Amino acid sequence: MDRIIIIGMGLIGGSIGLALRAAKLKNIEVVGVDFDRGVLNQAKKLGAADATETNPTKAVADAALVVVATPILAFPEVFQTIAPHVPEGCVVTDVGSTKGQVLRWAAEHLPARIPFVGGHPMAGREVAGIEGASATLFQGTRYCIVPAPTASKEAVELLVSVASHLGAQPFFADPDEHDVLVAGISHLPLVASAALMATAAGSPAWREMALLASSGFRDTTRLAATDPALTRGIGLTNQAGVLRWIDGLQETLAGFRHLLQEDPEAFLTAMDKARDQRLLWMADRQGLNKQESDLPSASDMMTDLFVGRGVADFLKKQDQRLAEVERKQGTRSGGDSGSR
Amino acid sequence: MDRIIIIGMGLIGGSIGLALRAAKLKNIEVVGVDFDRGVLNQAKKLGAADATETNPTKAVADAALVVVATPILAFPEVFQTIAPHVPEGCVVTDVGSTKGQVLRWAAEHLPARIPFVGGHPMAGREVAGIEGASATLFQGTRYCIVPAPTASKEAVELLVSVASHLGAQPFFADPDEHDVLVAGISHLPLVASAALMATAAGSPAWREMALLASSGFRDTTRLAATDPALTRGIGLTNQAGVLRWIDGLQETLAGFRHLLQEDPEAFLTAMDKARDQRLLWMADRQGLNKQESDLPSASDMMTDLFVGRGVADFLKKQDQRLAEVERKQGTRSGGDSGSR
Repeated sequence: MDRIIIIGMGLIGGSIGLALRAAKLKNIEVVGVDFDRGVLNQAKKLGAADATETNPTKAVADAALVVVATPILAFPEVFQTIAPHVPEGCVVTDVGSTKGQVLRWAAEHLPARIPFVGGHPMAGREVAGIEGASATLFQGTRYCIVPAPTASKEAVELLVSVASHLGAQPFFADPDEHDVLVAGISHLPLVASAALMATAAGSPAWREMALLASSGFRDTTRLAATDPALTRGIGLTNQAGVLRWIDGLQETLAGFRHLLQEDPEAFLTAMDKARDQRLLWMADRQGLNKQESDLPSASDMMTDLFVGRGVADFLKKQDQRLAEVERKQGTRSGGDSGSR
Repeated sequence: MDRIIIIGMGLIGGSIGLALRAAKLKNIEVVGVDFDRGVLNQAKKLGAADATETNPTKAVADAALVVVATPILAFPEVFQTIAPHVPEGCVVTDVGSTKGQVLRWAAEHLPARIPFVGGHPMAGREVAGIEGASATLFQGTRYCIVPAPTASKEAVELLVSVASHLGAQPFFADPDEHDVLVAGISHLPLVASAALMATAAGSPAWREMALLASSGFRDTTRLAATDPALTRGIGLTNQAGVLRWIDGLQETLAGFRHLLQEDPEAFLTAMDKARDQRLLWMADRQGLNKQESDLPSASDMMTDLFVGRGVADFLKKQDQRLAEVERKQGTRSGGDSGSR
């Protein structure tokens, strides 16, 4: 019996538990860990865990995989707490929204004997907590896999397998690349959504506007309601990425504004272009999901092929990086191993 | 038998037809007008009209109410076309997204004998055309009523009644007030959504970002797919309103950016505030809709009370405005009446 330990049974942790249990994997036990007994009771009731535990050090003692799904700013403490208790061969992963800082924390707080493979499922809801958890949250989405340079092939393959069982497609990225990409499609929309809300609600006419605001306003401001813990993690661990994209949005808006004032036809052309981009993206996205849901067997095959190719490509690079890391360590300390 | 003529059987025109027919009003016939016979056939099939007609001048000849629901930029031509054929006592209204320009066009192209009461249902979808039409599109929304200064009490009351039958609550506004309010909660979200899409899709990394973008990106960019005819109407008839709000959003974004760089805790406080504003707005909105759907009889009563009070308030103002208009006209032309 292999045990998968999920530390933090919130929206993502709970959904991973539900999805893994729905996959009916043989010889796998899902253990939910949370300091809140109410959350654990609910996790059991919803079927998000086979067993529950409030003590993480006890829970990880015989784990095959530890998924750290607490708010990102708690990661250093969680890593420190579990480090001495994670057994040989156990892989540690996370579900944090940023990866650069997380990999630095992992390098700092986890001994090198523990393979760390960062993860980031590209799915979410504004309903925080186990209440919002769903077994299908990851269906048809991408699962970013960002391994520490020292992570083994087997550790990476394990996470690829987990992502596939969640119904997601693995997406390999470097930590910095991940953080910039995700800032553009996830963190910037959050900031823009909040800015839109603040702009409207800051108006002296907001009382009347609030009555008139309809589905368009509702959807564009949905992300403004994001769980503060998530916003906090993003704001404090991906500042550079977010700043860069705010600049990008400011530039686009300034361009739109200029055109609307000086050359409305050119403004409409720019709006049309954005529309085409949106329609194309949605068509690609729906095509992808359709393939996945309509043709389960063909899709399984495709996923396998994709995963196979992706893993092969990745592992080649990983080999080169490992060699580089070993070379550097050799140069610096004459063969440091065991702990960092 | 009173005839309601809807000119332009798109999303809004079609939904008005569906909703009015679903209300099973006695002695009312809904006539759908469109130059596209395919659209008219579909309107009949969906039940959005009792009868259809391709010739607007013929259709309006014995109308009690004409609803102009074409793209807004076609209004001047529609007004000119129908003006000589609208019978005595018939009210003309529209469903355009802006009202200042529309009321100027109505004043220019419709004779003063035809009472014009501008309308703007605060509902929409990004699916354009009769395909997206729904009898419940207006349920629980506000219906802006912006009468021309010369419109009669009876004309205003007729539109209030129509809005109520659509399931919407009437909201009285001056044309300029309307355009600024609506620019903030409807046109700015559209521009922001398109800007977000353009910013992401304009990145060299868009190919990878497109794979990672998820439900948050989907919702915040939904409005970027708005029907180009609608965007065109907004861009060309509410420039001032939109420019003003783009400035507002830019200011908010600049403030957020500054805080994120200089004082992340203050940035998070600003994000929390936006979140509270969003939650409060949604709670109010849901409370309103809940009242309406859970307690039909109580709600009907409330609507009546509201409408009664709203109409009374409005008509008092309207009397004052009419007096003012008459005084001005008297001063200018010594009692011009009949046509403008």
